[in-house]
Amino acid sequence: MSAACGPGGADEPRGGIADRAAAQPASAPPPAERLSLNTATVREQWNLRQMIEACGRHGIRGIAPWRDKLDELGAAQAARLLRQHDLTVSGLCRGGMFPAADAAGRRAAIDDNRRAIDDAATIGARCLVLVVGGIPAGSKDLPGARQMVIDGIAAVLDHARESGVPLAIEPLHPMYCADRACVNTLDQALDICDVLDPHLAGGRPSGAIGVAVDAYHVWWDPNLPRALERARPERLLAYHICDWLVPTTDLLLDRGMMGDGVIDLPALRGMVEGHGYRGFHEVEILSTRWWRRDPDEVLRIARERHLRCS
Amino acid sequence: MSAACGPGGADEPRGGIADRAAAQPASAPPPAERLSLNTATVREQWNLRQMIEACGRHGIRGIAPWRDKLDELGAAQAARLLRQHDLTVSGLCRGGMFPAADAAGRRAAIDDNRRAIDDAATIGARCLVLVVGGIPAGSKDLPGARQMVIDGIAAVLDHARESGVPLAIEPLHPMYCADRACVNTLDQALDICDVLDPHLAGGRPSGAIGVAVDAYHVWWDPNLPRALERARPERLLAYHICDWLVPTTDLLLDRGMMGDGVIDLPALRGMVEGHGYRGFHEVEILSTRWWRRDPDEVLRIARERHLRCS
Repeated sequence: MSAACGPGGADEPRGGIADRAAAQPASAPPPAERLSLNTATVREQWNLRQMIEACGRHGIRGIAPWRDKLDELGAAQAARLLRQHDLTVSGLCRGGMFPAADAAGRRAAIDDNRRAIDDAATIGARCLVLVVGGIPAGSKDLPGARQMVIDGIAAVLDHARESGVPLAIEPLHPMYCADRACVNTLDQALDICDVLDPHLAGGRPSGAIGVAVDAYHVWWDPNLPRALERARPERLLAYHICDWLVPTTDLLLDRGMMGDGVIDLPALRGMVEGHGYRGFHEVEILSTRWWRRDPDEVLRIARERHLRCS
Repeated sequence: MSAACGPGGADEPRGGIADRAAAQPASAPPPAERLSLNTATVREQWNLRQMIEACGRHGIRGIAPWRDKLDELGAAQAARLLRQHDLTVSGLCRGGMFPAADAAGRRAAIDDNRRAIDDAATIGARCLVLVVGGIPAGSKDLPGARQMVIDGIAAVLDHARESGVPLAIEPLHPMYCADRACVNTLDQALDICDVLDPHLAGGRPSGAIGVAVDAYHVWWDPNLPRALERARPERLLAYHICDWLVPTTDLLLDRGMMGDGVIDLPALRGMVEGHGYRGFHEVEILSTRWWRRDPDEVLRIARERHLRCS
């Protein structure tokens, strides 16, 4: 691993040609206590209890469980362990997956999202992350799938509001449009927020719904600076970090450790925090490479890279 | 291969939920004479002479060579063969690749684009397709790379105009942002067009620069209908077709034959033609699967799918 945050760290400034305005790095390293561990990062090595204990060992103050790990332990038992270790739950991953080929499938998805909201409330999650789902099998109707997403979120929003669990729509990279999430830009996610949760008198949104900004999914978007400005800060519910590797050898499971790819993470954090975000920096790395490593080493490196490369 | 254009063809209408407005299919099959063969589709099986002769056999009226194939034959010799077979060149693939780590590299790219423009003029290509290039090796400066693209196109635009070769910026799917093209949406490409070639008095662009719309790269874009409306029709220089497979197993070489994936190609053609596009439908399939097939069979299937599934 490079000491200079991967390919770009040692780059000499080019100057003159580039418009650097949008790429100003954050002025200082991030506070270490902002780091949160998304359980996907070490999902093949540890169960949730092991992860919670490891966060204690490594001085990591936040955690974001996926539901498979939460279900193994049980939400009530997890909540006790999380309190014992004084961990903040930066988010629960994930609700969503609303589109389905028939009405029964869509109702089942809505029921599952209600259960996810209940679990998020039980463990005190700061938000429920929504990976909204793609095009139902057998369909090519992308506008239809997108409408199913809006309808699905609308059907659970009141329950989320009553439960005190903000819903965080996570726009996924466009390469997942067909099979994982047909919400693919931050602007598109914010459009849904504005439809379902119009700004209150005074111009501020209620906070019941917002977005999860994952560097891996949004870094390429030429409209990102404007969209982040639009989101600030009431709609910015979560910030996820990892890196885009060159080459990327798998569409799903080849995400990179911060610093090993081409995303200018300090610049992105600068924008996110410049618009008022003060929440966790949740490291979420789906990677067969990192899943083969010793998980304590993964956490040690993630902690170090968070400070130095993000 | 399904008789119903792949996964979506046999789908029953769902009705009620979906906003179908943007997904209205084109009202009739496309005219067969609009089909053009992009040489990437059979690049592993044939040289350019074989492809030109095959277009004659299969009744295909358009062709779009890549430069590797053109260089093998020579542009002058290719021009003679193309005339003999009465083939229209829907585009030359490709110019672009402007960003580089140093000034010498950027100058070399500009020189190479001038040669590509000359070759495009020699074979009478309707446009030179620009795959603009990604982030230079060793850099994480995406805004800088994007500025290099603008500067590079600006440096060759006069030569293109004088040569009678329109430049067609092809926005590539965001998964290619790092290493192939940092222009990733149609709107972003149109922004560059507007900067470099402002609308003339009367509100019409000059036609010297525009966009190549490839279904594979843009199908996911929630802003696509608005961007196509913005492009109409003077900036719409080329239309490429293939399909997005589910699952997609390789980021570059797993594109699908029309009908085998999830893109609603009739709806997309309806939008493109609804905004005045009357050019070729260029089939461009980079696929190790199709490269293993008999190339005459590939052309036969492409011709049939063009009519039935696009």
